[in-house]
Amino acid sequence: MPGVMELLPLDQIAFQNMLDTVRRNFERFGFLPIETPAIEFSNILLTKSGGETERQVYFVQSTGSLKQGDEPELALRFDLTVPLARYVAEHEQQLTFPFRRYQMQRVYRGESAQRGRYREFYQCDIDVIGKDQLSVRFDAELPAVIYSIFRELEIGPFCIQINNRKLIRGFFQSLGIADGERQMLVLREVDKLDKRGEQKVRDTLRGEGFALEPAVVDAILAFVGTRSQGHEDALRRLDAIAVDNELAAAGVAELREVLGLVRALGVPETHYALNFSIARGLDYYTGTVYETTLNLHPEIGSICSGGRYEDLASQYTRSRLPGVGISIGATRLFWQLQQAGLAARGRSHVQVLVALMDEANLPLYLELGTQLRLAGINTEVQLETRKLARQFQYADRAGIRFVAVLGSDEIAKGTVAVKDMRRQEQFEVKREDLIKTLRVEIQQGEVMDALSGQAAP
Amino acid sequence: MPGVMELLPLDQIAFQNMLDTVRRNFERFGFLPIETPAIEFSNILLTKSGGETERQVYFVQSTGSLKQGDEPELALRFDLTVPLARYVAEHEQQLTFPFRRYQMQRVYRGESAQRGRYREFYQCDIDVIGKDQLSVRFDAELPAVIYSIFRELEIGPFCIQINNRKLIRGFFQSLGIADGERQMLVLREVDKLDKRGEQKVRDTLRGEGFALEPAVVDAILAFVGTRSQGHEDALRRLDAIAVDNELAAAGVAELREVLGLVRALGVPETHYALNFSIARGLDYYTGTVYETTLNLHPEIGSICSGGRYEDLASQYTRSRLPGVGISIGATRLFWQLQQAGLAARGRSHVQVLVALMDEANLPLYLELGTQLRLAGINTEVQLETRKLARQFQYADRAGIRFVAVLGSDEIAKGTVAVKDMRRQEQFEVKREDLIKTLRVEIQQGEVMDALSGQAAP
Repeated sequence: MPGVMELLPLDQIAFQNMLDTVRRNFERFGFLPIETPAIEFSNILLTKSGGETERQVYFVQSTGSLKQGDEPELALRFDLTVPLARYVAEHEQQLTFPFRRYQMQRVYRGESAQRGRYREFYQCDIDVIGKDQLSVRFDAELPAVIYSIFRELEIGPFCIQINNRKLIRGFFQSLGIADGERQMLVLREVDKLDKRGEQKVRDTLRGEGFALEPAVVDAILAFVGTRSQGHEDALRRLDAIAVDNELAAAGVAELREVLGLVRALGVPETHYALNFSIARGLDYYTGTVYETTLNLHPEIGSICSGGRYEDLASQYTRSRLPGVGISIGATRLFWQLQQAGLAARGRSHVQVLVALMDEANLPLYLELGTQLRLAGINTEVQLETRKLARQFQYADRAGIRFVAVLGSDEIAKGTVAVKDMRRQEQFEVKREDLIKTLRVEIQQGEVMDALSGQAAP
Repeated sequence: MPGVMELLPLDQIAFQNMLDTVRRNFERFGFLPIETPAIEFSNILLTKSGGETERQVYFVQSTGSLKQGDEPELALRFDLTVPLARYVAEHEQQLTFPFRRYQMQRVYRGESAQRGRYREFYQCDIDVIGKDQLSVRFDAELPAVIYSIFRELEIGPFCIQINNRKLIRGFFQSLGIADGERQMLVLREVDKLDKRGEQKVRDTLRGEGFALEPAVVDAILAFVGTRSQGHEDALRRLDAIAVDNELAAAGVAELREVLGLVRALGVPETHYALNFSIARGLDYYTGTVYETTLNLHPEIGSICSGGRYEDLASQYTRSRLPGVGISIGATRLFWQLQQAGLAARGRSHVQVLVALMDEANLPLYLELGTQLRLAGINTEVQLETRKLARQFQYADRAGIRFVAVLGSDEIAKGTVAVKDMRRQEQFEVKREDLIKTLRVEIQQGEVMDALSGQAAP
């Protein structure tokens, strides 16, 4: 099917390694897993007035309701945020707040098919949800999670770009653009700076629809052009903001606190920066917003985004549930890393192939396989008769590093011959030393893989 | 939504632990992962003439095609076998055969909602696919995988019940029931023995539809009543089969070989048996068939089933692709184990909460949290001001075992106080010894959990 990513096994292993790294880091920071069904009631998914979203939703009908011509009651989730809102509202009494959840599942969008656009793809989300209130300190924790994940994924230098919607809105108010909807339109225009270029955005803002004064447009573009370099520079740029507006001042205070705590959390100052052009398209962010970009691959765009919102689930519960969250679009990210040559190749999970030398000794080979597995070594036993050279060839092509050979000689001597397909060398060990030897070799191989940036299982 | 399993975080962890155990064992036996999209073209999913299946399929339509009144082109997969067939046919040239794949994903069925019946649930499948041929030896490997998984899941004694469709069909031929379709109807009737009881099945077989002679019905019921106890008994029962039929003889020979290799693979003879009533409802099994039942909970039925088939993907490719596979319905299994009190409770992944004692020292707490995480310890830092007693209470309710306390006393002394919520005791260590101490405590806790059968992350 077009618009989906389907991988061969070794690439699937590489992708799985990426997801495992993300999951491990989510858990490192104390986030707990949930999963929600892919199918939800349409009226739950579509409460937001999302024009584009509604056009992209996939409806679901069983054969029965199809025949009766019913309007589809069910639909596939298009993100993990709406299901989270429904989940928190539904299980509110049984959850502990602040509720720190992670969720790594597929979402579905009826996109028109094009390269790198997926109709079915993984999102990896974390959110912290407070009840009634949630300290801005949590906004500082998420960049630390982002840093931890992408450092471990070894995909080159990256930078977490931080902004604050209160600052942006206060700034616009100070320019006389007070109307919320108008602000939003300007914000959307500004959000296109990277895509459309400064001149086109400037033209649009001065043109009929917005009709802004040249000085105002200058002020906006100067503001959104702000990028900090290092921690002290970021603080200086906050000090330099000369906007007499309460909301802007609140935004600046939040940014100052977030920056301080991000540093205290050990994120190097090379890896975070202020970027006043970040606004995020979604309308529900109200405070801190983040985007993450690869320094050497700006063309990839943001690989991890998110922000702070006022109220997660106002449609489903009367409780006020402020939160902050981030999302990684893992399928698209993996594809992009592959395109940029940054995706590690997966290695086979299978560590040993026990060769089939003599039909009569098959039970012996099976027993050896079982012993290796009980020792935690992933093992396949050759079950069909083939020449030994073909068995080596199979191991080589399948990416299995070791072939254990038990011929009549070895059986007589109480040894095992081991062919190392990667180093193309063969050695012989006593049978009782086989497991110990293989463990050492496997561990050394993993260390070498880690050093060379190759993903090992 | 009814008909789905949605879990609270600690139950989700328990479920995730179960899936991880299954995955680890699949990999131990040299199976490689693949994932396929949940959405496939309907005409690919529905090539089998499956009456019930077609009624249960969920069709998928984007908003656009809904408005145009188009017949749905897309549907959700209802199992992992049809997508496997499509995958193998599509990627045939890039795969190595025998192709050993595992797949653990959700499938979708428009079932009418009832307890323990799910519309969206996980299946965990392995299959070995040969090209042109596949030795019956692979049929012996799968019971070893089943044994390894359920032993590790610690859900009590279980038995893998083995039969062979050739034997069954040959046996029926020898009774004069030679017509394939008629055999299938009798097999379906026999398959209901456990559900309907012997008398009802006997009545049906002698009644109008089948009109079998009493002696024939007696022979059938005696045959399907066969259960072996231990390895030697199983071989004796195969010897005792006095059916003059080639197909039956082939089935007996296969069973004999499978039993011998299952034993050679180290599966204890208490954990496998012949059961001639096992036929499996699906029509495409052609040789070995398996079911797995819990000795103390027969009411749960089979927790892992499968078998040998002649040709996986005849609809999609001209290559002949014989295979053998098994499937675990993980969602239903987890629910059943919960019902039977056999599901382990999950423990929080979070191992340490760093308490917030003094607002001014927050950067110190954040730094400690980062140090613990870098040491591989899952850590949450208390970010919002609360009395210490409330912080202990939070850790206790959230299932976080250790609370690290750094008050002014401890800071002055260069120590950390650690409260162990599980043992309800507190100890103090030097700051430089904290990580080492916690690692030992966590490891000991995991050992204790393993001994008590509690699932730890």
